[in-house]
Amino acid sequence: MSQPAALLDGARVVVLGTGLIGTSVALAARGQGALVWLSDTDPGAERLAADLGAGDILPAGGPPGGRADLAVLAMPPAAVASGLARAQARGLASAYTDVASVKVLPLARARALGCDLACYVAGHPLAGRERSGPAAARADLFLGRPWALCPLAETARGALGAVRGLVRACGAEPIEVGAEQHDRFVALVSHLPHLVSAAMAARLTAARHDALRLAGQGLRDVTRIAAGDAQLWTSIVTANAQPVASLLDEAAADLTAAAEALREVASGDDTSAKRVTDLLSRAAAGVTRIPGKRGDPAPRYVTVQVVIADKPGELTRLFQAASDANVNIEDLSIEHSPGLPVGVAELSVRPAAAGTLAAALRGRGWPVHL
Amino acid sequence: MSQPAALLDGARVVVLGTGLIGTSVALAARGQGALVWLSDTDPGAERLAADLGAGDILPAGGPPGGRADLAVLAMPPAAVASGLARAQARGLASAYTDVASVKVLPLARARALGCDLACYVAGHPLAGRERSGPAAARADLFLGRPWALCPLAETARGALGAVRGLVRACGAEPIEVGAEQHDRFVALVSHLPHLVSAAMAARLTAARHDALRLAGQGLRDVTRIAAGDAQLWTSIVTANAQPVASLLDEAAADLTAAAEALREVASGDDTSAKRVTDLLSRAAAGVTRIPGKRGDPAPRYVTVQVVIADKPGELTRLFQAASDANVNIEDLSIEHSPGLPVGVAELSVRPAAAGTLAAALRGRGWPVHL
Repeated sequence: MSQPAALLDGARVVVLGTGLIGTSVALAARGQGALVWLSDTDPGAERLAADLGAGDILPAGGPPGGRADLAVLAMPPAAVASGLARAQARGLASAYTDVASVKVLPLARARALGCDLACYVAGHPLAGRERSGPAAARADLFLGRPWALCPLAETARGALGAVRGLVRACGAEPIEVGAEQHDRFVALVSHLPHLVSAAMAARLTAARHDALRLAGQGLRDVTRIAAGDAQLWTSIVTANAQPVASLLDEAAADLTAAAEALREVASGDDTSAKRVTDLLSRAAAGVTRIPGKRGDPAPRYVTVQVVIADKPGELTRLFQAASDANVNIEDLSIEHSPGLPVGVAELSVRPAAAGTLAAALRGRGWPVHL
Repeated sequence: MSQPAALLDGARVVVLGTGLIGTSVALAARGQGALVWLSDTDPGAERLAADLGAGDILPAGGPPGGRADLAVLAMPPAAVASGLARAQARGLASAYTDVASVKVLPLARARALGCDLACYVAGHPLAGRERSGPAAARADLFLGRPWALCPLAETARGALGAVRGLVRACGAEPIEVGAEQHDRFVALVSHLPHLVSAAMAARLTAARHDALRLAGQGLRDVTRIAAGDAQLWTSIVTANAQPVASLLDEAAADLTAAAEALREVASGDDTSAKRVTDLLSRAAAGVTRIPGKRGDPAPRYVTVQVVIADKPGELTRLFQAASDANVNIEDLSIEHSPGLPVGVAELSVRPAAAGTLAAALRGRGWPVHL
């Protein structure tokens, strides 16, 4: 992300928690000209985030030069209220926000702990990856994504402005919503999908390897988010228990009804198939209601496929050839078929470089597919 | 796809049904040198497939020059047996296969219709897209994907060889499995995921637009396959009713148990959260059992993270260093934040090699994280 004017030029930001989200916020903020200090209870995560250029490690005495403009609490829901209380006791920043996936409970706890809520705007970026930790962080993680903000009646205008500025600097779309409504909404669009994905993935633990060899992309997509951290997601869904429980009942009822319809079909009653079609039709209609990704950029790279031998040094030679042709490889993935001595390296490059790269690789004898 | 030698050079293939799968098979076969004739009950779909270069339209009298080497029945499960009977009555080809998602019922019906099963090999490519029809077809749809084949005791060796040749020409991996086992396996890895995805997507039909504005990638991934054709999927799951119904009961039971645990948490019993964690942990363990794209069990490699400059030649130097240290890089992914001058290369290596590699890279000045 680079823009004509840096949106956070000279702003002073502290990020508490350098996991995927915190480090991504830090990278985006630095990309917009902010000075960023990082802190994490895990020194390794903190060090890696700093090595990645996400900011400097926060000194024990706080940011050099006094309190920061904004502190971002990038920690699980249950840690937010106490984290906010500690940060405010240190006088770390003029305004505070968090990125936790639920809002009602952290707000209630912060109030109970006597936090200053005038300078705190609860927030939740609707972005993530199945991978966690600072190495998975990306400055563009929030590009075009919604970012819920839950200001209160007592929220100071300056604090809301500072947090909205950060959201904009991350390329996200701030959406103001009450905390209770937020929690009901994310129960539907985030927490239920996670548990439904988990109910599918849990069936795989006892599955035969032979069955799993037949897995296609559908299973991978449905179960992708179920790979998330079990403790973190327990803390999220238990912090939003009632709305999630109601939706779980509805989903379970649909699955049970489908099972009954299928058993009736199996015993000869073909009319029951219609109940399965009804569910699938409602589902297909539901999918069409999901808005398209806003700000989804046109694909920036094209893929050059190269058939390579599966042996040490082959990728080195490939990259050497690209380097000699002065082509920068933006990304790489490797596809292999079991038992075959070759694989397909898929090289992502800028469109203008694809022809050059293909010619260079063909010139050294690799079969290339554009 | 093009390879040094065309795998189907001069082979004569008829594709009956020019939807997504049939047209993709035809494109792949033509790419490997086959002569392909196309037929579909929908003349528009047939014409479009031909215009896309998938082959010539099958003349009413059959392929010019006499029977084809292989006919591919690319039609829904319920149509396969009668389609096979008609094709064999016409003497269309020397060998036959199909691509339907279930195998027991079509085989039983084909036997009941008196089809010649010696020259028929039931098949099922585990590949697809949420889009259907010939326009969505891709010659590389099957690249690296499993393709189940269910030969019978009476299957002629020549027929099996012809069908395996087609599968290989499509770049897929033939996996031989009994028909009953196939159906139980796909109930788990294909049909249950579809219905679980549908049970989630069905909740969206009545959702508020404000809630859907907060949708992230997780919801999109979980519900992607639920956008599939409701009639086609009804025909698939009803043709595999008993195995699917049992799995639906299990998934529904997990969701119901999670709802109960959440309600107990909401009423103050924090110990019930453990039951949610148990489900999520089983789920995360289940996801790790899905083989990588290669079709191998997910290999237990360790990841070495290296912070690298985003410039030509950097990866070459990295691989050269690994090569000099005699370490084979099993896989690589690059995490890269647009606009930043560095990224993280994640090198997958065998556990025994991780220390060697880390030392070698640190010795050349790269920040390394194990």
